[in-house]
Amino acid sequence: MIPFKVMCRNCGKEVRKDEWRWRHDCGGVLDIIFDLQGRKFPELIDAKEESIKRYAQLLPVGELPSVHQGWTPIVKKNIAGVEVNFKLEYLSLGGSFKDRGAYVSVAKARELGQKGIIVDSSGNAGIAHSLMGLLSGIDVHVFISKYAPEGKKKLLRLLQANVHEIDGDRMDVNREAIKAEREGLPYVTQWWNPYFIEGEKTMAYEAYEQIGSVDQVIAPVGSGTILLGLYKGYEELVELQALDKVPKIIAAQACGYSKACEELGARKKCITKSKLLDGIAEADQPRRGQIVEAVKRTNGYGIIVDDEEIKRPLVELRKLGFIVEPTSAAAYVALKQSIKEGFIEPGSKVLLPLTGSGLKSVDKLIEIS
Amino acid sequence: MIPFKVMCRNCGKEVRKDEWRWRHDCGGVLDIIFDLQGRKFPELIDAKEESIKRYAQLLPVGELPSVHQGWTPIVKKNIAGVEVNFKLEYLSLGGSFKDRGAYVSVAKARELGQKGIIVDSSGNAGIAHSLMGLLSGIDVHVFISKYAPEGKKKLLRLLQANVHEIDGDRMDVNREAIKAEREGLPYVTQWWNPYFIEGEKTMAYEAYEQIGSVDQVIAPVGSGTILLGLYKGYEELVELQALDKVPKIIAAQACGYSKACEELGARKKCITKSKLLDGIAEADQPRRGQIVEAVKRTNGYGIIVDDEEIKRPLVELRKLGFIVEPTSAAAYVALKQSIKEGFIEPGSKVLLPLTGSGLKSVDKLIEIS
Repeated sequence: MIPFKVMCRNCGKEVRKDEWRWRHDCGGVLDIIFDLQGRKFPELIDAKEESIKRYAQLLPVGELPSVHQGWTPIVKKNIAGVEVNFKLEYLSLGGSFKDRGAYVSVAKARELGQKGIIVDSSGNAGIAHSLMGLLSGIDVHVFISKYAPEGKKKLLRLLQANVHEIDGDRMDVNREAIKAEREGLPYVTQWWNPYFIEGEKTMAYEAYEQIGSVDQVIAPVGSGTILLGLYKGYEELVELQALDKVPKIIAAQACGYSKACEELGARKKCITKSKLLDGIAEADQPRRGQIVEAVKRTNGYGIIVDDEEIKRPLVELRKLGFIVEPTSAAAYVALKQSIKEGFIEPGSKVLLPLTGSGLKSVDKLIEIS
Repeated sequence: MIPFKVMCRNCGKEVRKDEWRWRHDCGGVLDIIFDLQGRKFPELIDAKEESIKRYAQLLPVGELPSVHQGWTPIVKKNIAGVEVNFKLEYLSLGGSFKDRGAYVSVAKARELGQKGIIVDSSGNAGIAHSLMGLLSGIDVHVFISKYAPEGKKKLLRLLQANVHEIDGDRMDVNREAIKAEREGLPYVTQWWNPYFIEGEKTMAYEAYEQIGSVDQVIAPVGSGTILLGLYKGYEELVELQALDKVPKIIAAQACGYSKACEELGARKKCITKSKLLDGIAEADQPRRGQIVEAVKRTNGYGIIVDDEEIKRPLVELRKLGFIVEPTSAAAYVALKQSIKEGFIEPGSKVLLPLTGSGLKSVDKLIEIS
């Protein structure tokens, strides 16, 4: 493993690596910084592994479980003269891109001697952590609103998660999870956790190995980990001399949950808050500043998507063979809009991750269609 | 494409290739026979394709759609000293191994100028054909019992299938589907259709490229296409000088639906007919003789599994990271039993396909657990 530091983004102080911290005492978010000076990407790959473990040297965990996470397929399509590379993140063990972050986070918690973890997500993140916990022998406590869909609760229970149903909204659930953390188990949810982003960054490594450089990357932004992961992965690929520059990053957010995109200058007349894009319906992100900075650095931009806009794209995606959850359509809408408005020109090469499996949300998809 | 013939297995006559036939006029099942004399496997692979299309030369269709079907990951696990290679067939676009057969069948129907097809399956086969039809622009008529689970009907409708609900059991549904066929559309369901097996055989090709030869292969038997596909794929690999012999094939069937295994000498005191292994709950197979012959030729055997036996294995599979449907556990039970009884010895190398995604049957999995 390459040497790394855990640094506070707010005050710049280094943090101890031998205990779990989800944020710094000063309130700042934490980042993992590897010392990549003079190293080259190909030397750091374990080419016999076809999973995230392939990049073990570039991950901040000593022992990673042998399980097929990551190494998802890419499907190339020509859309209005643009080469769109769909990365099928939903064809993974837990059915979403969050498997990557959960894989690294749970392995790290285990390495630090933790017997259990606390997560506050009813959706893909809860499922991903529960599955990784189940196969690592770690108890996963999932805090969830009692109003969350029954189907999701069932899947969590099937994965032997300890489901804590809270009578309240997302903020109440978050408060209860953090309260529970004081009783000793680490709080690992993606919003803060820097190890989660380390898992997500492997998506950029893989895409680079599969299709080389790209001009643009489109990332739906909920907690922002997929965007930050892609940004970090590409930034490291530049540092490791594999690429000249980080591709332009385009953020896609949902109506009513679009602070980062607004800060990036996106405007849209939203009539109502999104109800269908629940996977990215986050009022704000602890890492919003970091997200906006990442997009700006790549000369990227933001696009705000409303519920009406995703209906037809979801059908189009299924006609391409992709049964994905509603949220996956947000990035596709951003793609189409970018092409229409000339931000993405014919001849460009785009990476577009399809984030979550539609098999988990058939009822919702039917409702939309 | 390598030259091939369509032959009747019953009377040995050759059949015209330019029209769709699901069986011969004499009532016999049809087989596709390639002329592989003097050819070698590596020369016939299109190495730049990472999907079934990689084997286009060995498939009986001129034009195959560019879509990510097949090329599923393999995960290696040591179980009691046996190297078990789980092939994750459920991580595919339609969530099951049936995507392979449907991919080739729908492409063939399209090539023969058909505007639509008829399928009688409420489960994975219905979903696989509907998805392939959707992306090929072919109408898919799915005949299904009105008593089939609502969730499956929803998924079929989401994939724009024309769902025909029949008031009756499986036999009634089958009768209605064949009746509808007389009105002009081809009946493509797997039980008879030789093109379906051609799709399934690619699983053996892939496994060979991924892990080389194996000693045993375990196949759950419903309609028997996965078993026959694996057998045909391995047989062709022998003919193409890639392997010395076909691995031993072990068939797994469910209590009450085990005629093939009984013919192979399997005995079990079944108290009741299986209710949980619905994916392989077939009273009999049009190709039963062929299935039994294939297993015998490899010195294989059959194992009958009852509902009680699959409960714990399903939990074990999830602990390995595999969220699979109940039927997928049947092959795993057959593996464990074979190891326990010494039929599979330590040091052996086994291929075990995990057939269907558990995300499609969470309710059922909860009921079992």
